[in-house]
Amino acid sequence: MTRHGRFITLEGIEGAGKSTQVGGMAEYLRLRGMDVITTREPGGTPLAERLRAILLDPANSEMSQTAELLLLFAARADHLERLIRPALAAGCWVICDRFTDATYAYQSGGRGIDQAQIAQLEALVHGDLRPDLTFILDIPPDLGLARARRRRQGETDRFEAETLEFFTTARQVYLQLAQAQPGRYRIIDATVSLEQVQAQIRQSLAELINELEGRA
Amino acid sequence: MTRHGRFITLEGIEGAGKSTQVGGMAEYLRLRGMDVITTREPGGTPLAERLRAILLDPANSEMSQTAELLLLFAARADHLERLIRPALAAGCWVICDRFTDATYAYQSGGRGIDQAQIAQLEALVHGDLRPDLTFILDIPPDLGLARARRRRQGETDRFEAETLEFFTTARQVYLQLAQAQPGRYRIIDATVSLEQVQAQIRQSLAELINELEGRA
Repeated sequence: MTRHGRFITLEGIEGAGKSTQVGGMAEYLRLRGMDVITTREPGGTPLAERLRAILLDPANSEMSQTAELLLLFAARADHLERLIRPALAAGCWVICDRFTDATYAYQSGGRGIDQAQIAQLEALVHGDLRPDLTFILDIPPDLGLARARRRRQGETDRFEAETLEFFTTARQVYLQLAQAQPGRYRIIDATVSLEQVQAQIRQSLAELINELEGRA
Repeated sequence: MTRHGRFITLEGIEGAGKSTQVGGMAEYLRLRGMDVITTREPGGTPLAERLRAILLDPANSEMSQTAELLLLFAARADHLERLIRPALAAGCWVICDRFTDATYAYQSGGRGIDQAQIAQLEALVHGDLRPDLTFILDIPPDLGLARARRRRQGETDRFEAETLEFFTTARQVYLQLAQAQPGRYRIIDATVSLEQVQAQIRQSLAELINELEGRA
């Protein structure tokens, strides 16, 4: 079959279990013969990881909302130019833990920034590029936060420290995005066991691969 | 007289002598009875100074141009919200070493980024706020670079390391900005002595104050 680089993102609020799924997804795709890289946002390049540290640092709790938004897109611009786009061009599958949907959910839903401003930056930074497939690991915020707190060791970061209300509106935005564009999104029930979540994700990945193989 | 907070910026390519003039300007305005703060870009707040360090770090020579542009505006958003706007609202005069005009000169002139993209970010980050008066310390780039090299101790930063061509186009953009909006800009011949530059700047500041006093 022809190899197709595809861009897969994982989204969800704190405690939804995204990061846990990344490795299993990569393993499955490799078994199916794909070249795979896994990465995360904010981050993924040395510069973007420096910006991640600034964004998550509780010492920056007073950061201007516009500064936060621009830092997220600055990290994304570097990540896209130096890692994601070259990998896709080389035929790799890219699995990314969070991407621009998280900016809509957290900065628009959570913080109340106008979605039109985010759309403007999205156009500036990634033009027409969108993930081919986005998994939203969906969990009620109270359950997610309880999980995140059990998992957490040491200090909470700037986003983990947000309120239940913040994550409730962030979740609503994720579900609205999926509703507006059902072709790109798969909503995964993340209240079930890790194995069941993994099975749901593999099923969708298998369908995507079959579709691509059918086309090839 | 009524106290008016005014926003004064200093612009010019490397070696034009901006930083040297800041202190003298503040001293003159204080003698005239103003409350004054002096600041710089990128920088001016703890977060923006962290971003400045990233922007100037020669280790980041491969940074994506879009990332650089967004980092500059992220630093500016924090600087405006946490220092410049509150100071102006409190009636302070703010003297800033570089502002958005430098982004037009360096990122559009020097790097070739579309001015419309910069204008979009300018609108997002500072809406209608513009400096009340901008001094462009004008110097031929070869002379400016020679001065900057004599002054420099240790490693050159990411911008100082740019070419003569970069600063030639940056200077052209500064002069175009001034031509398009002569009311806001004063072009100062920076090839003359520091004392003569200072005298030209004081003359313009005196005119601005007289104008404000006339209105009051």
